[in-house]
Order: sequence, then C-alpha cells, then structure tokens
Amino acid sequence: MKLKIKKDILLSNLNYVARAVSTKNVIPVLAGIKFTLNENGLYLEASDESIVIKTFIDKSNIQEINETGSIVIPGRYILDITRKIPHEIINLETDGLKILITTPSSEYNLNGIDATEFPDYNLDLIKTPIILEQKHLLNIINQTSFAASMQESRPILTGINIKIDGDILEAVATDSYRLAVKKINLDNSINDNIDIVIPKSSLIELSKLLNEDEKIELHIFNNKIIFKFDNLLFQSRLLNGTFPNISTLIPTEHNIEVIVNLDELYNIIDRTSLLSDTDKNIIQMKITNNELITSCDTLQVGKVEERIIVEKNNNNNLKISFNARFMMEALKSFQSEKIKMLLINETKQFIIKALNDESLIQLIVPVRTY
Amino acid sequence: MKLKIKKDILLSNLNYVARAVSTKNVIPVLAGIKFTLNENGLYLEASDESIVIKTFIDKSNIQEINETGSIVIPGRYILDITRKIPHEIINLETDGLKILITTPSSEYNLNGIDATEFPDYNLDLIKTPIILEQKHLLNIINQTSFAASMQESRPILTGINIKIDGDILEAVATDSYRLAVKKINLDNSINDNIDIVIPKSSLIELSKLLNEDEKIELHIFNNKIIFKFDNLLFQSRLLNGTFPNISTLIPTEHNIEVIVNLDELYNIIDRTSLLSDTDKNIIQMKITNNELITSCDTLQVGKVEERIIVEKNNNNNLKISFNARFMMEALKSFQSEKIKMLLINETKQFIIKALNDESLIQLIVPVRTY
Repeated sequence: MKLKIKKDILLSNLNYVARAVSTKNVIPVLAGIKFTLNENGLYLEASDESIVIKTFIDKSNIQEINETGSIVIPGRYILDITRKIPHEIINLETDGLKILITTPSSEYNLNGIDATEFPDYNLDLIKTPIILEQKHLLNIINQTSFAASMQESRPILTGINIKIDGDILEAVATDSYRLAVKKINLDNSINDNIDIVIPKSSLIELSKLLNEDEKIELHIFNNKIIFKFDNLLFQSRLLNGTFPNISTLIPTEHNIEVIVNLDELYNIIDRTSLLSDTDKNIIQMKITNNELITSCDTLQVGKVEERIIVEKNNNNNLKISFNARFMMEALKSFQSEKIKMLLINETKQFIIKALNDESLIQLIVPVRTY
Repeated sequence: MKLKIKKDILLSNLNYVARAVSTKNVIPVLAGIKFTLNENGLYLEASDESIVIKTFIDKSNIQEINETGSIVIPGRYILDITRKIPHEIINLETDGLKILITTPSSEYNLNGIDATEFPDYNLDLIKTPIILEQKHLLNIINQTSFAASMQESRPILTGINIKIDGDILEAVATDSYRLAVKKINLDNSINDNIDIVIPKSSLIELSKLLNEDEKIELHIFNNKIIFKFDNLLFQSRLLNGTFPNISTLIPTEHNIEVIVNLDELYNIIDRTSLLSDTDKNIIQMKITNNELITSCDTLQVGKVEERIIVEKNNNNNLKISFNARFMMEALKSFQSEKIKMLLINETKQFIIKALNDESLIQLIVPVRTY
C-alpha cells in the first residue's frame, strides 16, 4: 500500500471510524483501523464487535495512489499522529507489516497487523433499504434513548425497539419505570413488518455521526442493521428477545389534564430536586386549582416548595411523587413551548405530550411515598 | 440574620468561597459556608483546613440588612439554589438553625449549623505586608508549580519555596527530576529574610481567583500565609521542613548552547512522545551541526524521528534522553518566540531560558538509557 493524502481528509475519516475502535483490547487487531486501498479509493474500517464503522475516501480525494493493498494500523497512534502532523500532505506506505508515515521533516514507523486477521463483518447491503432523513433518526434517538435501561439484568431493555408497519415507524424505549414512544411517517410504505431492538449504546454512537440535512438508509438483517449515509457504513448488532408490548401500558383515559409552560416546569423540578436524596431523587408534585406545586422534604437537608401557574381542564386535584431526573429527561425531549400532562391518580403512570402533537409520548411511573 | 441581596452578588461571592468548602466531610461544619452579617456587610467564609477563603460584601451591595447574625449553611445547597433561582433578589432569613430562602414563587428551608461550631481561623493581618501585582503572582504559580512533586513521600517537595531577600523574590519548585526557578523584583525592599514553602495545591486554588490588573498583599506568619486582594482573604498553611538548596544544582557552565524556536521544539517533542512508553514517556534528542532530532523507539509500537533547524554556538554534538512530559511542561512556561538550551553532556542536568531574560530558569535531569 502506498499513497499520498491530504491530512485533513484522512483525519476527518479517521475520526469517524475511531469511534468504533475497541478500547478494551480483548482482540489486539480490534485496537486497529483496517486500511484497504484499491483503484477506487481508500476504505477505513474499525469495530469493537458491537458496532462496525466503515468509511470510504474516493480516489478523487486522494493525491496519489501508488500501490494498492491493505493493513491494520493501531488506531490510537495513527489518529494522534495524523492529528498532530503540521504538514498538509501525508505519505503513507507499507513495508511488510511496517507502516511508514513521512513528511518533509519527520518519519514514523509503526508496527501493523496483517489485514487478513481483521474479522470479515460482511457489510453487504440489501436492495430496498428503508430511507429516513438523518434529522428524523436523530430525533428518534434523542427523544427515546434516555428512557432505555442501563441495567444489564434485562438486556432487551437496554435497546430501542423499532417497529415499522406500512409507512409508520415507532420507536420505544423503557426501563420499566418510564417509557418513551416516538412515531414518524416514512416517505414510502414497506411490505415487511419490522420489529427489531437496537442497543441504545450503538444508536448513541451513531447519533454523534449524523448531520441534519442528508438522508440515511437502514439495511435490516436477521441479527444486525447497517446504516448507510454520507460516505459511511455503520453496523450494529441487534438484541435478541421479546420487547414488552407497550399497547397496554399507555393509559387511554385520564382524570386531569394540565397544560404548563415547559421551561417553567423543568426549572422548578430542577430546583426542587436540589434538596432530594441524591440516590432516589424523588420529589412531590401537587396540582391544585390553578397552581402546580413541587416540593421535597429530606430529613438531613431541609425542604423546599416551588410553584407555577397552570391551566387545567377541571377542578380535580392530585398529589403525586416521581423521580425528578426521569421527569426532567422526559421534559427535555420536547421542543414545544407548552406541554400537557395527562394524569389518573397518584399510583397510575401518567403521560406527557406536546400540545398539538401526538408523535412523542413520555410516560412516567409514579413512586409511592406513603 | 435577615437580609435581601441581589442573586448575582451573592452568587459570585459564594463561587469564591466554595473553592475552600471541604468535600471530604471529615468535619461536618466544614461542608458549610459561614455567613456573618453585621452592620458593615456580609462575610462568607469556608475552609477545608488546608486553605481558608473569606469574602466580604459591603452593605452598599446589600439591598436590606434587617437583622444581623451568623450561621453555617451547607455549601453545596446554598450554591446550587442561588445559582438556579431565576429571581433577581433573594431573601435570606434564619429561624434558629433553620435557613429560610424565599423568592416570590418559592421557599427553601435548609438545616444550618451553629456558627460557633465553625473553627476560628484568626484571619488577622499584619501591618506591613509584601505587595505584588496579581499577574506577577500568577506567573510565579504558572511557571513553577508544575515542577513540584505530586508524591507525598517527600512532603516538602509538594510545595513552592518562596524566598525574599531585599527586593528580590525567588520561587522554586522541584520534584528532584526537574526544577523551575522564577525571580521577580519587588516594588519595595523588605527588611526580614523570608523563606517559606507554600503547598502547590493551595497556590493552584489561589491562582483561579487572581485577575490580571490588581495588587495582592502577602501576610506571612510562622505557619501560615494570608493573601489579601479584591474583597477576599485567602489563607494557606505552610509546609514544615527544609527545602533543598538549589544553588549547587543549577550548572554555571555548558558545552553547547542551542537556540531554537519554542513552538517548533514543543511540537516535535509532543509528536515524538506519541510513540513513547506511556508510563515513562522517555524520548531521545540528538543535536548535530545545525539540526535537532528527536526520536523514540518503542518495541511494541514502532519508532519516530522528527527534526528541526537550530542555531548553535559551536560544533559540539550531543545525544541525550529525557522525560518528554517534563520537557513540554518546562517549555510551556515560556512566552518568548525563541528559547536557549544550555547543555553539558548526556548525564548532567540541562537548563532552558528565554533568549534575553534570566528571570525564569527551567532545569531538566536527563534519563540514562544505555
């Protein structure tokens, strides 16, 4: 392998794939980035076994391709060296398993690994992928992933459930104490029913690579999904198991509907939770005639009461307790100025929606404090 | 105690003293900030036993003083509450050991601690302090503290030695592998000889409070020092013990004088050290006719050579090894475009100075690698 390439182009592509470089080093070759140079251009590929990221630099963006070939280069070193080299053009050349990186004033000689040792992740694509706007996928991830579980005790809940039926895509995440549902309309309808669970961690890594303005293809397989966008392929494993059926969990009726300014509610919960027990983070919320009062009383610390004005649909009052962090994360997922809360009683889960938009539902299970 | 005060004024002063609030909680009262309100204004004071910070808010900056008094308020809570309250004016009121913080829409009730339980740090001042520009003290700290030891095995080396003789102040820090000496001229000469060692950690905390344009008073006692500046008192304990005498350590002769661009040298050392063993961080430097070549060869990783052009005073050549991080930290302390290195041989410590400025000397002990 031998090529000349602009530092900036190599660096931006290394930054993409570096997100997948394994830092645990169980398999030494996965601490590396696989370089494959052919007549069409340069492929970079890295994996931590959970995700695979592959990027392509077209030959039109490479100064010189002198000799095709492939090798695995230690990820940390090639990234740091490329980032810190002050020259515009980098020469990359292999000599057996040695990698030579040269500039007019420096010479680096790194130990590589044979490219055949790098696992073959088979990133073949399907013919009819699902196509989304990247910004819609970004919304799905940002508005649901926080509700997925961090606990490995129920692995399936560490993922986000994506279902597609016709032209409706529904994403659900839950840790069993709260739940987030986001629905979007696809541009075209698909024939198969899709029902997969993608690890939250994969989607969060993916979200860092997404930009607002382009489309993304979803290539769904039995046990994996490949996202294709820009000059990138991003593969994630899928989680096995049955995701809870949420249709019975979301209440269809309610006793009180409260309309409230989103920022005001967020801020009083934030301040009230300052005095909560840091582990449990539980605060009370009282809804009276036209006021919403949050409060917290922690023996060692002290107590607090904060209040705001709200709109209500009837004279029913309610007192309820919940985890303040869960509530704040749910509220943060909305962009509207006002939101509505639909509540039944102090023991039943309640839901939060934007005022005139059913596409996002946040559900919170209250905490019993008596 | 009862007062009304602008949120911004209280917050900026809480932010100062919060740096001294103990996070280890060995003594519960030290997790608090002592509020003392009298007719002149409000004093805030906090300490982690190693440092004490006290600030004063003049009555002209307080909206209303209704009732003087004092109490210790948990530092973390009063800081977070004040930061997050959206109102311009905060009401603070005590009721026994309860602290009431109220705004038009909220009420906080914190558990305080009796002010008499807060240690009396006696922050009385002396009549004739030493006076410096804050920016000079900031230079002293930034240009020497990195060379002080992190190891508690020789506690005295975790401090910065400050000596004053006549109108010359000399600051020295060393971890025995490197040494930094900074000299500045005082505006007026003092009669006593000063020779104290201030913990590096205290000075680094102090440096975060300093600004460029004002003066600072140094009040030196037997076992402590008080810095007075702006509306603040900052007290630190002193370290007991004898600081090494550096006069014999700094070479007065050299075989090679090399003049080199500071940034260029810093950058090639930075890049060369990418391939060094992360623990030891050792690289080689070769000085030939008009080139300076840094190199590193690490068995598992690979090797690197970087070179720059230098000016030299004779034809002597030299090969020397050193800790790259120590060298980079030393270089970072200079602001000049060019620096000079004065070297004897591969085993003797070498020194670095700015071109026409003797006020700062960095000394590095080489590493034997053969």
